Amino acid sequence: MWRVAFFASRSRSHLVWMDSVPKSAASVKKILCEAPVESVVQVSGTVVSRPPGQENPKMPTGEIEVKVKTAELLNPCKKLPFEVKDFMKKTEALRLQYRYLDLRSSQMQYNLRLRSQMVMKMREYLCNLHGFVDVETPTLFKRTPGGAKEFVVPSREPGKFYSLPQSPQQFKQLLMVGGLDRYFQVARCYRDEGSKPDRQPEFTQIDIEMSFVDQTGIRSLIEGLLQYSWPRDKAPVGVPFPSMTFAEALATYGTDKPDTRFGMKIVDISDVFRNTEVGFLQDALSKPQGTVKAICIPEGAKYLKRKDIESIRKFAADHFDQEVLPVFLKANRNWNSPVAKLVMEEQGPGLLRRMENQEEDMVLLTAGEHKRACTLLGKLRLECADLLEARGVLLRDPALFSFLWVVDFPLFLPKEENPGELESAHHPFTAPHPGDIHLLHTEPEKVRSQHYDLVLNGSEIGGGSVRIHDAQLQRYILETLLKEDVKLLSHLLQALDHGAPPHGGIALGLDRLICLVTGAPSIRDVIAFPKSFRGQDLMSNAPDFIPPEDLKPYHIQVSWPTDKETEKNPLNPPRQAES
Amino acid sequence: MWRVAFFASRSRSHLVWMDSVPKSAASVKKILCEAPVESVVQVSGTVVSRPPGQENPKMPTGEIEVKVKTAELLNPCKKLPFEVKDFMKKTEALRLQYRYLDLRSSQMQYNLRLRSQMVMKMREYLCNLHGFVDVETPTLFKRTPGGAKEFVVPSREPGKFYSLPQSPQQFKQLLMVGGLDRYFQVARCYRDEGSKPDRQPEFTQIDIEMSFVDQTGIRSLIEGLLQYSWPRDKAPVGVPFPSMTFAEALATYGTDKPDTRFGMKIVDISDVFRNTEVGFLQDALSKPQGTVKAICIPEGAKYLKRKDIESIRKFAADHFDQEVLPVFLKANRNWNSPVAKLVMEEQGPGLLRRMENQEEDMVLLTAGEHKRACTLLGKLRLECADLLEARGVLLRDPALFSFLWVVDFPLFLPKEENPGELESAHHPFTAPHPGDIHLLHTEPEKVRSQHYDLVLNGSEIGGGSVRIHDAQLQRYILETLLKEDVKLLSHLLQALDHGAPPHGGIALGLDRLICLVTGAPSIRDVIAFPKSFRGQDLMSNAPDFIPPEDLKPYHIQVSWPTDKETEKNPLNPPRQAES
Repeated sequence: MWRVAFFASRSRSHLVWMDSVPKSAASVKKILCEAPVESVVQVSGTVVSRPPGQENPKMPTGEIEVKVKTAELLNPCKKLPFEVKDFMKKTEALRLQYRYLDLRSSQMQYNLRLRSQMVMKMREYLCNLHGFVDVETPTLFKRTPGGAKEFVVPSREPGKFYSLPQSPQQFKQLLMVGGLDRYFQVARCYRDEGSKPDRQPEFTQIDIEMSFVDQTGIRSLIEGLLQYSWPRDKAPVGVPFPSMTFAEALATYGTDKPDTRFGMKIVDISDVFRNTEVGFLQDALSKPQGTVKAICIPEGAKYLKRKDIESIRKFAADHFDQEVLPVFLKANRNWNSPVAKLVMEEQGPGLLRRMENQEEDMVLLTAGEHKRACTLLGKLRLECADLLEARGVLLRDPALFSFLWVVDFPLFLPKEENPGELESAHHPFTAPHPGDIHLLHTEPEKVRSQHYDLVLNGSEIGGGSVRIHDAQLQRYILETLLKEDVKLLSHLLQALDHGAPPHGGIALGLDRLICLVTGAPSIRDVIAFPKSFRGQDLMSNAPDFIPPEDLKPYHIQVSWPTDKETEKNPLNPPRQAES
Repeated sequence: MWRVAFFASRSRSHLVWMDSVPKSAASVKKILCEAPVESVVQVSGTVVSRPPGQENPKMPTGEIEVKVKTAELLNPCKKLPFEVKDFMKKTEALRLQYRYLDLRSSQMQYNLRLRSQMVMKMREYLCNLHGFVDVETPTLFKRTPGGAKEFVVPSREPGKFYSLPQSPQQFKQLLMVGGLDRYFQVARCYRDEGSKPDRQPEFTQIDIEMSFVDQTGIRSLIEGLLQYSWPRDKAPVGVPFPSMTFAEALATYGTDKPDTRFGMKIVDISDVFRNTEVGFLQDALSKPQGTVKAICIPEGAKYLKRKDIESIRKFAADHFDQEVLPVFLKANRNWNSPVAKLVMEEQGPGLLRRMENQEEDMVLLTAGEHKRACTLLGKLRLECADLLEARGVLLRDPALFSFLWVVDFPLFLPKEENPGELESAHHPFTAPHPGDIHLLHTEPEKVRSQHYDLVLNGSEIGGGSVRIHDAQLQRYILETLLKEDVKLLSHLLQALDHGAPPHGGIALGLDRLICLVTGAPSIRDVIAFPKSFRGQDLMSNAPDFIPPEDLKPYHIQVSWPTDKETEKNPLNPPRQAES
C-alpha cells in the first residue's frame, strides 16, 4: 500500500501518476475529477506496473501507476492567476507576484534544486576534501571607505548606523590574521545600486580565502572546485582553464571578460594602412597612439543586411563617437561605399593576408586610440554575433562552457571624475604584481596587480587577488596613493601589524554562475524570491511604509521630498509602471 | 624537502615544530630566535623523526621535527596587547577589540572548526541523505505584524523601509506552497532587542520545513540530524529523545525548558497540608487555585549555608513576592525557625513519604497559585544546583547531553498589557492541536498547539510546529482571535488559497547549540566576530556615524535627542563603560 500526496493534475518527481481509477469506487473518482487544478490531493492505493505499451519513458515514474483505494482533497486551489505550465507565457511581474505558484514550474524546480546540489558539492570539495572552515561573518558592519553603495541600518544609538557589507572582504582577511588559514563561506552580500536590470540588492557569493598561497594555488583550487561541483547532466569542465592578460583580452576581444566560445578576434592592421589615402584612417594614424583595428564577421556578406550595417555604424557613432567602415571581400557589395572600394583596391591583399578572410566574410574596420578602438570592436563583435545567431548561424554553442582567467590587471585607474588622481581598479587590499613593486613610488599608474578574474562565456563570474599583508605597504597605498581616510580601516592595518600571513582569495558570484549553468534568461530565475529591478518584492510589497513611532527607537525620521523632487526622482514613478 | 610557514613560537595542527636548528647555519638560527612572538615565519628543511625519547605524544606533530635549511621572517608581529595563550586571563572587551589575535587561541580555533564540521554534517544529512533543498531566502523583507524587534533598512523610495526578518518563517511556508517540499537553510536572522546579555543582533538558525509531515516525522528527522552530526569526541546522542508536555514540564520543573540532567523535581504536597496550622500555607490553600509545592535539595543540610538560605528567600520575595520555607529533616537545623519546626512536627511523616528524603536533605516549600509556585521553585531548583556545584557536588555532568521535546503548548496566551486579549504563544501560523479544534470558537485560550520545543540541558535550542495550511482557519485566527491587520499578510493568505500542502517545520538555534556542545561560556565564543552585549563591534567600532549626505538617498535624517533624553537613555553611556 502506497500513500502519496501531490498537486493534482501534475506529477512530481517523487510521486506516482494515476492512470487507473477502479470504476467501482465512484466516490474516489469523483474527488479526483472534481479537484481543481493545482489542488493538493492524497491517495492511497497499490503501486503496479503500467500495462504493456502504456509506459512513458519520459517520466521518472512512467513505468508505474497506482490502483487507488482512497482519495482525499487536502486543500483545494482557488482560481489561478495563470496556468502553471512552462509553455504559458506570463509577464515577469505576474510571476513575481505569485512566486509561490511560479516556483511549481518544472524550470524553477530544476534551477533551485540544481543550485542546492551544486553548492553542496562545492562545500564537500572545500570542507571535506580541502580542509576549509566555513565561517559566518557579520552582515551588520560599519561603512567601508567609499562604500556609497552600502545599505545603512540605523542602530539604537543616535546617529550611528550599521552597514550591510558588499562582501566579507575585511573579515576574511582578519580570519587569515586569526589563523583560520582556509576560510570559505556562502556569503550573503548587499549592494544598493538603485535600479539596475539583472542586479539584485542582495546576492550570494562563494567566498574563499587562504593563507600561504599564490595566484596559481587559488586558480587550481577553483578549477578543481568547479570541476567537482559541475552538474552531471552538463558537458564536463576541462582544466586547467586558459588564462590571458588583461592587456591581451583588451587587444583581442575589446573587453576584460571575453567570450572565448567563438573567434572574430580584433586584429591590429595599422601597418597595412601606413600609406592609406582614406581620410579618417590617415587622421587616426597621424596621432601618437593611433591605430587601425578590424574584426572579421564570418559570412557577414551573406547574413548581415543593410539595416544591420546601419545600426552598427549608428551604435559606434552614438556611443563611441567613432567611425566604422564595413568592407566586403565580394567587391560588388562595396560599390555603394567608395571608401570601402578604395580600401579594397589599396589594401585588399594586405587585409586578406592579415584577416585570413573567406569570400563571404565582412570586415569591420575602425581607427583611433588603442583602448577606444578595441572596446568599440569588442562591443560590435558581440552585437554581430547576436545578429548572426538571429539569422540561424550557430556561433556560441549553448552546451559549451568556456572558462577563462584574466590576469595582470592594472592596480590603479585614473579617477573618472578627476583623472589626475588614482583609484583602485578593484579594491585597495589588492597586492601589486611583484615585478612592478619598483614602480609604486614613481609610476603607480603603471603597476600591475595580483588580481584575477574568472570569466565564463563572456560573463565575469568571479574575481580575487593576492592581498597586501604588509601594514606599511597597505598604509602607503591607502594614505599616499588613494588619499583614503585610514581611520575607517585602522583595525585592519593594526591586524596586518600583528603577524599577518601572506594570503589571497576569490569570490564567485553564485547567482550568475547558476544562471549560466542552467541557461536561465535572468538571475531572477535562479533565486527563489528575487526583487524586481527596482528592488521591490512584488509578492509581499516590500519595502513598505513604517509608522513613525517604529522609527523613534532608531532616532531617525523620514525627510519627505517636496512634490518637485518627487517628479524628478525616476525611482518613484507610480507603482503600475513596474514590470 | 618540506616548506612550511606558521606563527612563530606556536605550533599549528598542520605545521611541524622545529626543535633542531643546524648549528652551522647561524643566520637561520638568528632569524628564528629574533622573530617576535606571533610573527609569521617560513622555513624549508627536511622532516625527520625526533630523537628517541624526545617525542611529544600530546602534539599532533610530536613525533617529527624539521632540520631547517632556510628560514624567512614573512611578517613580524608588533607588540601584543595580550599574550595569545589560553591561560592568560583577558577581559572580554580586549578580546573582542583584538579579535584577530583572540581567534588564534586553541579554544576559538576548536570552537569555530567544530561549528563548521557540525554544520557540514547537518547539510550532508539533510541534502544528501534526505533530499532536502537548500534555498536561500531574502533578508531584505517587509515588516511582519508585531515585528517590533525588526531592524529597518531604508530604501531609496521615500518613507519605505525593508525589514531584516527574525526568521524565514513566511518564505519557508511559501516554499511549501511552491512545491519545494523539503526545504532547509542555514539562515541568518536578525533581532533587535537592544542590550541583552548573551544575545546577538544577528544569529544563525538551521531552518527546516517539510510538506506532508506530522510532529512525529519532524521530531525523528531532527533526532537523526543531531545524532548524525554530533561530534565524535563527545558522548553519543541517544534517540529517540524523551518528550514531555508543557503542563508536565511546568508542574515538574517549573519551566518550559527543563534541565533533565538532574532530579530535584517539584512535588505537589497540597494534600499533606490540608490541615496545616501554618499561616501562609493555610492562606494559600484557602484560595481556589491554591497549592503547596516543594523541591528537595539533596544533602542541602550539609552544603547550604545560612546565607544561601537567606539569599534564596530574598530572591523569592523580590522577584515573586512569595514566601519560601526551608525545612530540614535534621530536626536540630530547624530550631531557628519555629514554622519549620511546626511543619516537621505536624507534617513530617507525610512530607518524608512524599519527598522520599534522606536525612541530610533540605526541603524548600512554597505555596500559592500553581504556575507561580512552580515557576519560583523551578528557578530555585537551578539556583540551588549552582550552589551545590559551587560546593563541589556534581549534579550536572558536563559530558552529558540531555535532550528533551516539550510539546502541547497553549496556542494562545493572554496579552501581557491587556489580559482580556489573546496573543500567539509562538507565532500566528502555528496549527491548533487536532484534539482541541472544537474549542477554537468557544474557549480559544484552552486550545493546545502543535508547537514543539527542543531543549538541551535546560536551554531551548529549537522550536517549530505544524503550520496552518487552511486559508480560512488562518484568517479566522489572525483577524478574529488576534485582531491583526491581515493586509500585511495578504500574500501568505493568498498562497494558502492556492493548494497549500499540509506542512510543518522547525528552527534550531545554531549559536546556542554549538555553545552547549563545545561547553563555551558564551555564544560569543562560538561566533567569529560577535557583537558586544550593546550591539557593538569593538574591533571596527560599528555601528558608526555617517555623514548626513550619505543618508540623503534614503530620505532619512537623524533626530538627535536632546541632552535630557540622552541622560535618560541607558543605551548611550560613555564608550568606556562597555565591558
